[in-house]
Amino acid sequence: MTTRELLLAAGAAKSALATATTEQKNAALMAMAEALIADTDAILAANAADAEAARGRISDALLDRLLLSATRIEGMAQGIREVATLPDPVGRVLRESEHPKGMSIRRVAVPMGVIAIIYESRPNVTSDAAALALKSGNVCVLRSGKDAWRSADAIVKALRKGLTAVGLPETAVSLVEDPSRESARELMTANGLVDLLIPRGGAGLIRSCVENATVPCVETGTGICHIYVDQAADQAMALDIVENAKTSRPGVCNAAEVCLVHQAIAAEFLPKLKARLVDGRATDPVELRLCPRAAETIDGTPAGETDFDTEFLDYILAVKVVDSTADAVAHIAAHSTGHSEAILSTDEAAQAAFVAGVDSAAVYVNASTRFTDGGEFGLGCEMGISTQRLHARGPMGLEELCTYKYLIRGNGQIR
Amino acid sequence: MTTRELLLAAGAAKSALATATTEQKNAALMAMAEALIADTDAILAANAADAEAARGRISDALLDRLLLSATRIEGMAQGIREVATLPDPVGRVLRESEHPKGMSIRRVAVPMGVIAIIYESRPNVTSDAAALALKSGNVCVLRSGKDAWRSADAIVKALRKGLTAVGLPETAVSLVEDPSRESARELMTANGLVDLLIPRGGAGLIRSCVENATVPCVETGTGICHIYVDQAADQAMALDIVENAKTSRPGVCNAAEVCLVHQAIAAEFLPKLKARLVDGRATDPVELRLCPRAAETIDGTPAGETDFDTEFLDYILAVKVVDSTADAVAHIAAHSTGHSEAILSTDEAAQAAFVAGVDSAAVYVNASTRFTDGGEFGLGCEMGISTQRLHARGPMGLEELCTYKYLIRGNGQIR
Repeated sequence: MTTRELLLAAGAAKSALATATTEQKNAALMAMAEALIADTDAILAANAADAEAARGRISDALLDRLLLSATRIEGMAQGIREVATLPDPVGRVLRESEHPKGMSIRRVAVPMGVIAIIYESRPNVTSDAAALALKSGNVCVLRSGKDAWRSADAIVKALRKGLTAVGLPETAVSLVEDPSRESARELMTANGLVDLLIPRGGAGLIRSCVENATVPCVETGTGICHIYVDQAADQAMALDIVENAKTSRPGVCNAAEVCLVHQAIAAEFLPKLKARLVDGRATDPVELRLCPRAAETIDGTPAGETDFDTEFLDYILAVKVVDSTADAVAHIAAHSTGHSEAILSTDEAAQAAFVAGVDSAAVYVNASTRFTDGGEFGLGCEMGISTQRLHARGPMGLEELCTYKYLIRGNGQIR
Repeated sequence: MTTRELLLAAGAAKSALATATTEQKNAALMAMAEALIADTDAILAANAADAEAARGRISDALLDRLLLSATRIEGMAQGIREVATLPDPVGRVLRESEHPKGMSIRRVAVPMGVIAIIYESRPNVTSDAAALALKSGNVCVLRSGKDAWRSADAIVKALRKGLTAVGLPETAVSLVEDPSRESARELMTANGLVDLLIPRGGAGLIRSCVENATVPCVETGTGICHIYVDQAADQAMALDIVENAKTSRPGVCNAAEVCLVHQAIAAEFLPKLKARLVDGRATDPVELRLCPRAAETIDGTPAGETDFDTEFLDYILAVKVVDSTADAVAHIAAHSTGHSEAILSTDEAAQAAFVAGVDSAAVYVNASTRFTDGGEFGLGCEMGISTQRLHARGPMGLEELCTYKYLIRGNGQIR
């Protein structure tokens, strides 16, 4: 099936999904989880073929992300079951008024329609995305990366068994057959067939979507997150938070990449930072990339031209001494991707200036940036973390996968 | 000043606008209204020069839209004063939760940043858009059509006097100096400098934005609105509503362009429709463009290939006989621009099927499509009517000109 044929089939399923009841959708999710478990052998065989083809061509870290096991499949199934327990976002009345002439005017949440998701080589995204799209009444068209395509195909085949078991169209979840750049471009420009495009992946994919997409698109994920240690910081707390934000899971988008330190405490704090992040860590010591002023106080790698504009996703932290909170805010404005930033300070004026001045999806006072996550923010789940201003910002849960329409009921009103 | 220089200056004003208090913004609006009145002579002189240059090159209807008078300027000033009375959308807490570890997590409305508006030759859009942007804490960059550029320039000069009178940066409102296609293209691709682009104009402008914009964009305005007269319609009510939706103001986007009539009542209703819209109107009789089945019953113009896909904006109505509510829904899905559609019926099952099946910004039961408007929907004002699903749908008021950010306050939490 060509990508266009697949999109047309997806479009034909929109109405069935939009009008499916909560009970139907939850039954479908439970059946999808069951089918996933039942198909464990087929999925593992497909995954082994993916791994065999990818070995030597991709890094060990990527290979690890690609590999499935019976336990990981059980985890995917459990993720689907958890989506079934979340509230249905469709049909919520978001605003209600009565027109002076007597009509009722209601703004009601409805699904977006067809959501296309372009992702890379994590097979679990296939089931996560399908479950969130289904619960929010959306049809989804998945375009997996090439390295995980066989796994994604086996997973989608299982999910479709779950859909048909409860009488929903199997075209509610589809996998693009051709995992090439051309198919990605085709999704980006399928106006009228794709209602929302969500790219999930690295900076190159996101940039390609911004530049090429003519369909509505939500950018996700790139996080050059900053932590600013103010002169009035509790320094013991600051060490805990910087270490957590940098090292608890360095490969994710809400990990910190840059630490800004107020000049008044640099001479005191930087040696403590080095002691904690470098010398104090038996495994995975952090490489510090230092601005010239920081390098006057501690040893480390001199920061290169791009180090303050790089999402390292590794045990690397760029460190810069700044003159003031205003200077920190200005640095963030120039270098941030708009994901998550934190100020560590006990000074309320500094906190207020930072919170007002930093224009990112999540702005923290005295806490780790690692909390930017749909589950942590109380959304129950997440399809990705938006770094754009339009439509959704920060973690996208089920509500953010919906749009709304106005329903006006009258008895003959004219204007 | 080049468009890029102007955008950079606008960006530098973002922070002042985002942190301006409600009192400051309202004082600025009152001062802007006053300055507009004070500059009446200069604005009228600029407008006369625009009209002189445009005469003979544009239609009388467009010329009428372009022409200002002291009364129209007073109306523009009054519009600005009304925006001052609306609630401030910035800073509203949209969602609030407490994390199990004790942090407070708040989702707070913030301005979009720099809003660029590309419009055509209605000078009043200049002051309307500037007032709405200001009240929502946004900087605006206006790109007027060539025919009204001198008028827009005189209006912006006046509005800036109001801004500086209260100490806000005059760069909060700017007019692009070059009203060419190139400047429009430049705004569409000014990533990082334009946070939201709103095109206000005809189908060509909207299409150009969809195809070329790489900045976030909200499509507005094109309305091929349908009214479906069901077999169970109150026919007297239907005649009132169809006449109102077609003729009360045919040049606006919420006017009806297509009437769908259930086959079971076509023989009875179509003659009444012709009597009301054609024979019964002393002035401005409506031209009916009929599908073959409608043409069997009444006289009119045979509908051509494009008549069911045209926003006439005139005393023209396309008429089609359909087999059922489902057939009406299918026709709308294939031909609507997603603006406003109505079902006229006393049958609750037909109403429910129509409301669930029609995917447009506004879906009416037994009322005229002419109500789709920010003021009528209780938003107090409107920047345009979105026909897209992402971010805002239907009338865009002050709240829809905002985005949000998450503010997380902790005391040392790590994950």
